[in-house]
Amino acid sequence: MTTETMLTTIKNVKEQTPLIHCITNYVTVNDCANLVLAAKGSPIMADDALEVEDITSICSALVINIGTLNERTIASMIKAGKKANELHHPVILDPVGAGASAFRTETVSRLLKEIKFSVIRGNISEIKTIYAGSGTTQGVDADIADQVTQENVHEVVVYAQALSKQTGAIIAITGAIDIVCDERSAFAITNGHALMSSITGTGCMLTCLIAVYVSANQNTAIDAVTTAIAMMGLAGEMGVSKMQELHTGTSSLRTYIIDAISMIDEVTLEGGMKIASI
Amino acid sequence: MTTETMLTTIKNVKEQTPLIHCITNYVTVNDCANLVLAAKGSPIMADDALEVEDITSICSALVINIGTLNERTIASMIKAGKKANELHHPVILDPVGAGASAFRTETVSRLLKEIKFSVIRGNISEIKTIYAGSGTTQGVDADIADQVTQENVHEVVVYAQALSKQTGAIIAITGAIDIVCDERSAFAITNGHALMSSITGTGCMLTCLIAVYVSANQNTAIDAVTTAIAMMGLAGEMGVSKMQELHTGTSSLRTYIIDAISMIDEVTLEGGMKIASI
Amino acid sequence: MTTETMLTTIKNVKEQTPLIHCITNYVTVNDCANLVLAAKGSPIMADDALEVEDITSICSALVINIGTLNERTIASMIKAGKKANELHHPVILDPVGAGASAFRTETVSRLLKEIKFSVIRGNISEIKTIYAGSGTTQGVDADIADQVTQENVHEVVVYAQALSKQTGAIIAITGAIDIVCDERSAFAITNGHALMSSITGTGCMLTCLIAVYVSANQNTAIDAVTTAIAMMGLAGEMGVSKMQELHTGTSSLRTYIIDAISMIDEVTLEGGMKIASI
Repeated sequence: MTTETMLTTIKNVKEQTPLIHCITNYVTVNDCANLVLAAKGSPIMADDALEVEDITSICSALVINIGTLNERTIASMIKAGKKANELHHPVILDPVGAGASAFRTETVSRLLKEIKFSVIRGNISEIKTIYAGSGTTQGVDADIADQVTQENVHEVVVYAQALSKQTGAIIAITGAIDIVCDERSAFAITNGHALMSSITGTGCMLTCLIAVYVSANQNTAIDAVTTAIAMMGLAGEMGVSKMQELHTGTSSLRTYIIDAISMIDEVTLEGGMKIASI
Repeated sequence: MTTETMLTTIKNVKEQTPLIHCITNYVTVNDCANLVLAAKGSPIMADDALEVEDITSICSALVINIGTLNERTIASMIKAGKKANELHHPVILDPVGAGASAFRTETVSRLLKEIKFSVIRGNISEIKTIYAGSGTTQGVDADIADQVTQENVHEVVVYAQALSKQTGAIIAITGAIDIVCDERSAFAITNGHALMSSITGTGCMLTCLIAVYVSANQNTAIDAVTTAIAMMGLAGEMGVSKMQELHTGTSSLRTYIIDAISMIDEVTLEGGMKIASI
Repeated sequence: MTTETMLTTIKNVKEQTPLIHCITNYVTVNDCANLVLAAKGSPIMADDALEVEDITSICSALVINIGTLNERTIASMIKAGKKANELHHPVILDPVGAGASAFRTETVSRLLKEIKFSVIRGNISEIKTIYAGSGTTQGVDADIADQVTQENVHEVVVYAQALSKQTGAIIAITGAIDIVCDERSAFAITNGHALMSSITGTGCMLTCLIAVYVSANQNTAIDAVTTAIAMMGLAGEMGVSKMQELHTGTSSLRTYIIDAISMIDEVTLEGGMKIASI
């Protein structure tokens, strides 16, 4: 991605203030809303089947996050997703905990059948679960440990691209090394800090940030996803630096990360983003 | 409002520690609870139809906020509202997103039929939706832009007072300029800062603050609402100053605003409140 | 409790990173998740009846908190609790607001019939409600005021131990003076600060902290509960000191308390814990 592309990606967000419809979990929902605002988007959380079509119609992207999945909201997710598809709005899936219960795994499988997603972002375990559960007979290589490393990164890209082909979605696997790919291209992002996993919500917030960026950059969606992931990683680095400098703890880190998203400028981003084609 | 009135209004809150029953959304509920505590009230969040009457009976005010409205809780809102009316507790409505979906607009209309509200607080779009949807044939002047300005403030007051007459509630329209009115009098409050809209929950928190203040000052409810709005705006100003001084971002601002409510004293309030009769 | 016991208790948590299944309220759920992470555990919030058995099976302890109780999640609590009992996982009850509504009181009573709890943690009003509602004919001494003091502490211990005998659970009553007991022994903990009650969630967070500690120390559960309570109290003291030093308010205090849990070390704990046998 060139500097010019990155600058255009950010400029489009600032100019459009995209309205994001989030059907998400009640654990990190406040952080997600504040993150969207910090990123110059505007969030609407609405999950009742009686209104999700209306709400998604006035927005420009839809986030579906299954973090505290329940029967009532599955119907809402499907209704909202179908309407967003009809309107050609990007739909972003965060399959939180796919694999942790049959209910989550089966719901993700059902969502993938009923809705066309623009982006699926999860950790490697979640993405592996989706890949294995998506009807392929290839299975998932059991040798791939549940972490992306310099050693297995190419192996992970192979099945991430296979999943991208199956679903039509950009696949984002986030962890120590983040991978973004569609069928044709793949990127590795090495921003971020291990301490980001000591707070809840960094994944959910990142999914919302991706929605903001993709919504405003639909023709260059893979660049938008990559930019959002690098930006979140960089915000994590800035947050950890501040935490260490001020000798504070993990709750402060949460505040600093959202602060960083609200304050980050193009120069910092350009200097700090660690993105490589793979 | 005289200084004496303001001081009495605050004193009554401090002496009574009013217990506030909140049926509210899951996005900003934690901020609302902490705001009520910061303001020397005590919050109880309870939304199941099987207990809302019991809960509202031990409280002294009820907040109904439709931010993440769903079918289950509408029944609870109505039950709680009727019980609070029966007990002559003030009931405060925050019609979050009225107009954004038919479900919200119709639910607000239903709530207004079934429950007598003491205060309705919303942004201008929400209040306009309520006014237009309340069965009047006067309609809403389409020329009134969705912002209160020095130019249209008198025009807005006209329909806010008409809505007050229809509903019997004090109407509070908050934005760059805040308007509070009942049938007989109207005030404009110009505290606050534009950056307050870069975090979620300032509106929801303000509605809860109004509930705390009205609950302890039922015979001077319009002064209580006005005081609460000026106090929240001043807390926003203090928060933004601190954010700018410490070069922090929007998540810190959220913390600073609740901090300010917990620390603000009468002298600061008296010196900082910007309230004018109109 | 000896220093050695305390150190082992903490070491076991650090070595095991216990996975905690929380069925909890939507007011303080984010603080609870961040607290569990700060304490070196790992939280999963899941409340749908279709998945709670799967989720609790992969965890090592279950928290049931009735803070925003509703009909849908009662069935989930019972299913999860029975499964956790079957697997011999500790189950911790936080009976938030028991006594405030018949629905809460009756639900607690039902939970106690269907599930065997390892620990029940509440304030004195909640624990009194449980004791009175548990079928004993002794009643609760109406002379015991709703606060544990140096004067009534022995009286409170008598019925806390009676409740412990009835339920088989360790009973923790938290307030200005905290009491922990089982049938045989009882401790008083005097850490903490009155300002902790100016934020929401300290009780809910403490219950989760207890779950983390008990989960990793099942054979010495009463020491684990006592350590967790002293640690939370000490974190509160540290938070209040920081708040006063930096002239911040109650929302900052919330951040400082979770920060303190993430940063507290064994030396600080050993020096600061105020635990006495009674």
